[in-house]
Amino acid sequence: MNAPGPAISPELLAHAQRLSLAAKQAARPLSALSSDQKNAALSALAELLTDPAHVQRVLSENARDLEAGAQAGLSAALLDRLRLDAGRLRSLAQAVRDIIALPDPVGEIVETWQRPRGFSVQRTRIPLGVLLLIYEARPNVTIDAAALSLKSGNAVILRGGKEARHSNLALATLLQQALKATGLPPDACLFVDNPDRGLLLALLQQSGAIDLCIPRGGEALIRFVVEHARIPVVQHYQGVCHLFVDERADLAMALDLIENGKCSRPAVCNALECLLVHRDVAAQLLPQLACRVAPHGVELRVEDDARALLPSPLPTGLRVTSAKPTDFGREFLDLTLAVRIVPSLASALDHIAQFGSLHTEVIVTQDAAHAQRFQREVCASFVGWNVSTRFNDGGELGLGAEVGISTSKLHAFGPMGLRELCTTKFVVTGSGHVRT
Amino acid sequence: MNAPGPAISPELLAHAQRLSLAAKQAARPLSALSSDQKNAALSALAELLTDPAHVQRVLSENARDLEAGAQAGLSAALLDRLRLDAGRLRSLAQAVRDIIALPDPVGEIVETWQRPRGFSVQRTRIPLGVLLLIYEARPNVTIDAAALSLKSGNAVILRGGKEARHSNLALATLLQQALKATGLPPDACLFVDNPDRGLLLALLQQSGAIDLCIPRGGEALIRFVVEHARIPVVQHYQGVCHLFVDERADLAMALDLIENGKCSRPAVCNALECLLVHRDVAAQLLPQLACRVAPHGVELRVEDDARALLPSPLPTGLRVTSAKPTDFGREFLDLTLAVRIVPSLASALDHIAQFGSLHTEVIVTQDAAHAQRFQREVCASFVGWNVSTRFNDGGELGLGAEVGISTSKLHAFGPMGLRELCTTKFVVTGSGHVRT
Repeated sequence: MNAPGPAISPELLAHAQRLSLAAKQAARPLSALSSDQKNAALSALAELLTDPAHVQRVLSENARDLEAGAQAGLSAALLDRLRLDAGRLRSLAQAVRDIIALPDPVGEIVETWQRPRGFSVQRTRIPLGVLLLIYEARPNVTIDAAALSLKSGNAVILRGGKEARHSNLALATLLQQALKATGLPPDACLFVDNPDRGLLLALLQQSGAIDLCIPRGGEALIRFVVEHARIPVVQHYQGVCHLFVDERADLAMALDLIENGKCSRPAVCNALECLLVHRDVAAQLLPQLACRVAPHGVELRVEDDARALLPSPLPTGLRVTSAKPTDFGREFLDLTLAVRIVPSLASALDHIAQFGSLHTEVIVTQDAAHAQRFQREVCASFVGWNVSTRFNDGGELGLGAEVGISTSKLHAFGPMGLRELCTTKFVVTGSGHVRT
Repeated sequence: MNAPGPAISPELLAHAQRLSLAAKQAARPLSALSSDQKNAALSALAELLTDPAHVQRVLSENARDLEAGAQAGLSAALLDRLRLDAGRLRSLAQAVRDIIALPDPVGEIVETWQRPRGFSVQRTRIPLGVLLLIYEARPNVTIDAAALSLKSGNAVILRGGKEARHSNLALATLLQQALKATGLPPDACLFVDNPDRGLLLALLQQSGAIDLCIPRGGEALIRFVVEHARIPVVQHYQGVCHLFVDERADLAMALDLIENGKCSRPAVCNALECLLVHRDVAAQLLPQLACRVAPHGVELRVEDDARALLPSPLPTGLRVTSAKPTDFGREFLDLTLAVRIVPSLASALDHIAQFGSLHTEVIVTQDAAHAQRFQREVCASFVGWNVSTRFNDGGELGLGAEVGISTSKLHAFGPMGLRELCTTKFVVTGSGHVRT
């Protein structure tokens, strides 16, 4: 059963209803806007994000959040996610301009065909309607998500983390200015400045007005949302990404891909978390791997058979510990890599089916039949052959900007760009056709 | 908050876990089957459905359900939905053969492109995994849903209504025989023979194993599922379908479309429920409409302005009553039609935005600009111009068989065929590409 959870006060429920109804009313005119109208608003937003007076104000509000965060004892990593500066605001403005440059998905005719009876059918892309975005400490999500929602013709309700409250409010003010300056409905982007979880709970019940909830953040947040939502949720969950070095792999390539997967940005969801090595190449690969990742300060979590193949003494910088059972299927988000030797491709497939998180899985091999089997049988949003796990990203795959990487199989699986914030309707045109 | 609802016993929870895990384990080999293997199983099923000995057994089990239903006082309409006979079993076998003839969606490459860095990206269709289908009195759904699931490579858990219990069990036995005879995993189609709502609740919690729940039935069932599910739900909800007769309509065509929409099969979800008439043509249309639908025994629910335009005395067979506010936005599923005169196209669009159910909306007009505005602005799974609402159907639109018509905007909007029981993954092939 869904947990009963805290009661929602009538005031918060009424607040959630007002907010979602306002967004729903904005969604209808928004869905009919031309690309030029939407791009004009985005352009105004990009201008504001680089206007010196506004930059100054956003940064001083951000300083308040940083100070409160430091006092509350936030980690250095969290404070870094929270921090804005002129450069980061320029990047945000550039991200908005990148979205302007992307094709408008709304109205796109996905397919068109004629029925034998003589009427025509088109599948046409339309906005979903109202999105509810729930996120944590990064204030840049406020702008990214609003820009993607606007371009895809959706109204959005933004509910950011309390750590970034002042920064988010300052950014939301710029959003409002951009909408007003270009004649768009101000309720197209609503920022929720209320940290009460009761309001979040109340919003998650508004199935008549909100079409989709996208929670972005830690596992606890996502579980909370899934548990309590009566509206559809697309989960952007953890990435327990594997790379399998097949018996027929090019080992030099494998080393490049492992290093890039693990060390280039260990805290992101498409970083490599577990290396599977075919036993016929383990004795050759693992000593080289030790030397390759030692300078990055990597910790390898290995089982006894793998440990026996590592050099002694270990290269400077490398740490090696015994893998616990819970180290498989685990998202370290750190310079830690679980390692397992497997007897076959089939066994690697079994491991991934058991421990993978449907996010990103890669095989390294020169054998096309092995690769094809892997790419066919592995269920994950991204199944790669001789590429780094790090390519599971909307920008890298060519989708343009993304709101995140869905690990839900429903609606969108993988990076969610503008198209994935839309659905399609059937547009049917006849000349008086009746069904007999 | 989600209602706490009845507690689930540990036994039912364990039962639900066993069922969903069994289905999940079957889903993996199922996803890798060839089209020939799946078609062989479907072909075996179609044979069994027309084999005299099996037909006899299914019909005698069906007779038990009919007898129990009559004793329980089920309506004639419900008893008719419950009834099987040799002809209906032949139709079921034919429906299975139609599914054999449809192209296999699994493995279909939806899109393919090359990235500037030189690696290739394909979007490939894959099964969703495990489906949970919850339905009410019609035993044919057991076969239809199993066949669609199998062809789309999904395992399915079928939970039918208690009224059809014996019929469903007999059909599920045929399913098992067909799977075994062709070497497919028997857990690919699991029929739940347990009417306890606690088991249903427990199944709705199995988010680790079940990928999608499709409830089909009355509003109460669907609300129950949405309220309690922690797994994604695609709703196949009511159809409050409108037809708007524009000021520039061909009125003879409009009469054909209204008669077809309302009278050809009033109990289905794509039947017409509300007629909107532009005031400039109301005086001409409504008297003709009265004559046209009178022989069918239609009841018109009208406001005063429309009533004043109807002939007096009324043609024999026609009933006319005053529309209550709740008659707008209502699914009658009967020979009842709400009628409203509107002053403009914009007003019709407002009415549909307020009262429509996102299912099926139609404009009748000779004015292309009016039609284009209607087709662009109306949000519904099917937006028609000069066609009957009755065409919102997978078969009629050319998708082949369907599991129902989704009124959820997420994942699938409109008829759900084989493709809509699938998702896509990114298959990415490089030659050692690392992200820089």
